[in-house]
Amino acid sequence: MRVSARVSGINGGGSDGWEVFGLARQMIAMGHDVVELTIGEHDIRTDPRILEAMHDAARGGATGYAGIRGIAPLREEVARRVSARTGVETAPEEVLITPGGQAALFAAHMAACDAGARALFVDPYYATYPGTIRSAGAVPVPVAAGPEDGFLPRGAALRGPARDAASLLINTPNNPTGAVYPRQTLEEIAEVCREADLWLISDEVYDTQVWRGAHLSPRALPGMAERTLVVGSMSKSHAMTGSRIGWLVAPEPVIDALSNLATNTTYGVAGFVQRAALFALRAGSELEDEIAAPFRRRDARAREILGRSAVLRVVPGDGAMYVMVDVRRTGLSGDAFARGLLEAHRIAVMPGESFGAAAAGHVRIALTVADDVLCRALETLVQYADRRADAA
Amino acid sequence: MRVSARVSGINGGGSDGWEVFGLARQMIAMGHDVVELTIGEHDIRTDPRILEAMHDAARGGATGYAGIRGIAPLREEVARRVSARTGVETAPEEVLITPGGQAALFAAHMAACDAGARALFVDPYYATYPGTIRSAGAVPVPVAAGPEDGFLPRGAALRGPARDAASLLINTPNNPTGAVYPRQTLEEIAEVCREADLWLISDEVYDTQVWRGAHLSPRALPGMAERTLVVGSMSKSHAMTGSRIGWLVAPEPVIDALSNLATNTTYGVAGFVQRAALFALRAGSELEDEIAAPFRRRDARAREILGRSAVLRVVPGDGAMYVMVDVRRTGLSGDAFARGLLEAHRIAVMPGESFGAAAAGHVRIALTVADDVLCRALETLVQYADRRADAA
Repeated sequence: MRVSARVSGINGGGSDGWEVFGLARQMIAMGHDVVELTIGEHDIRTDPRILEAMHDAARGGATGYAGIRGIAPLREEVARRVSARTGVETAPEEVLITPGGQAALFAAHMAACDAGARALFVDPYYATYPGTIRSAGAVPVPVAAGPEDGFLPRGAALRGPARDAASLLINTPNNPTGAVYPRQTLEEIAEVCREADLWLISDEVYDTQVWRGAHLSPRALPGMAERTLVVGSMSKSHAMTGSRIGWLVAPEPVIDALSNLATNTTYGVAGFVQRAALFALRAGSELEDEIAAPFRRRDARAREILGRSAVLRVVPGDGAMYVMVDVRRTGLSGDAFARGLLEAHRIAVMPGESFGAAAAGHVRIALTVADDVLCRALETLVQYADRRADAA
Repeated sequence: MRVSARVSGINGGGSDGWEVFGLARQMIAMGHDVVELTIGEHDIRTDPRILEAMHDAARGGATGYAGIRGIAPLREEVARRVSARTGVETAPEEVLITPGGQAALFAAHMAACDAGARALFVDPYYATYPGTIRSAGAVPVPVAAGPEDGFLPRGAALRGPARDAASLLINTPNNPTGAVYPRQTLEEIAEVCREADLWLISDEVYDTQVWRGAHLSPRALPGMAERTLVVGSMSKSHAMTGSRIGWLVAPEPVIDALSNLATNTTYGVAGFVQRAALFALRAGSELEDEIAAPFRRRDARAREILGRSAVLRVVPGDGAMYVMVDVRRTGLSGDAFARGLLEAHRIAVMPGESFGAAAAGHVRIALTVADDVLCRALETLVQYADRRADAA
């Protein structure tokens, strides 16, 4: 029996650059003490108050089918939040609650692309992007945004591929680079989308993690609300990765159509999880700031320590829980650098190559361990880099 | 901006037979006291012990990413359960935990069918089947199993459509008919699948609700384990509809491929929900019997009351939380009967037409209200039917 070609082919083919990650996991499984700087997951757990709210809801009877689009008060709360944070008046009817941001990303591509359509995404990229596009039956087309441009996509690079594409996926604040797209970049993107009549899929799940400047949603730009699908999530903002709850904000006809998709692919999200999310959102920005604070602090410390290196170049980044480092002056690829660091010092970072060709010669450091552990690991990383450069 | 054709087209077109259901919901929303016999959802809530187990897990730290395929102990428990209940030795590697049975149904079709492939399903059918097949980019092809055959599909009817199809979806115990497919039927189905090299997708979410005879999984038939994808769920067996947790049991290569699909469409299931399911499954068959007991009791009462009618014919059925009734001798369609009953007596049942052409002239009664309310409503329904027949 043969599994369908589209499901067999989701991962593309060839090396995916995740070998070092796999190696680190193996070492941990074998009992080695590895400093794990690969994963975008908080080193704290979901706030107990949120878990109590969930339990109260479950005990109170929120254990039956909760409605496909999400419970009304949560859709209202998300709409309120999006209105307040982006300045775009947003109605509950423009919100679909999904079982996680990943499900929203998939749904957005299903709505934007017919089978075989070309779906653009910016390279470097979060690992699931090409697979998500393939899962939706579309063709992933990377558009490089290299280190020479601060990993920001340029209108000139987008314009050509945009001509025969259905959608463009961007992510700001950005994983893996930490870039927070400035207005100028977003205006160039918006112009291309309007010119080529593209759907813009905007992954904004790191919108509470901005250390310098401010997050701007492209949905707020002129003529963009009607063609922008915004992916949001409770995962990063509220340390609720494991609760699997997020949303899509989109024009009402898109939400209507995607509620039919949800009926047939997920049948909605657990009511008690929705109540937990509602409680968390109603707790306001204080809770979000509290959850973002360690990353803000570690970002500053990391940049300071990494800046001491004679050979490393820290990529300017203003947000998200990652710092990207250019290791090319060590003479190593990102992959070789990460592999060597893991083998010599049991410190695991992600090779830039894991996130696409445009991030080659870089490594991504997740700021997801305790400050002292992080700082010691980064000091070791700097020494390792400088020694490698001397040896080269 | 245009939503993709495939998402716009998920619902097919034309009347879907759910107008009476919508009308009943409207009447309830307007404050009318409607006896609601339309929905397959328990009149009890999830057992508090299961909710406590969930809360304990969440407080204990199960709030991070839980692994795409599901946590190991739950996959083991599901494998043990499937082995014990079907006699087919099943490994944890053959289990994928999904956010509900609906997600498993979608994933199964994604694995079995390439885009444009023909996917057979038995009419009458659970409402999402054609939409699920369309969501997966395949073409839904109904195969009628009419009242003259006790709503059981026949090999002779399947053989032709099977020739150019990729998969066949069956459901036993059956929603909406209550049929529990006998060995003879399943052997005919299996033979067709082997002959035509079809994937068999077997929806067995009602496997704990069998009132007479026994549930047989087609995966247990010779040569079928390698081509059968079994959809399971905690919804019906454990009154956990709102928790959105189920599974797919399939050959390991299918699970491997679908774990890639899950990475890109759901990113797994909440760990605390998986822990709740694990607790519930480990509670064993006593809890399941307790949850099934009201439906067993009501099935007997309903058949007894409906049997008193001079014109109704109760469809023989041995399981699930529904009783199907042939109303043709009233001179009404299922739709007209249901509409009339709702308007005259505020009793809501589902027209057979909601579940496909093969169930025309029937209504489905969900046994999902308290016994006394159910009995009174059915007595009224019998009087209504007999009066309608006299008037005709």
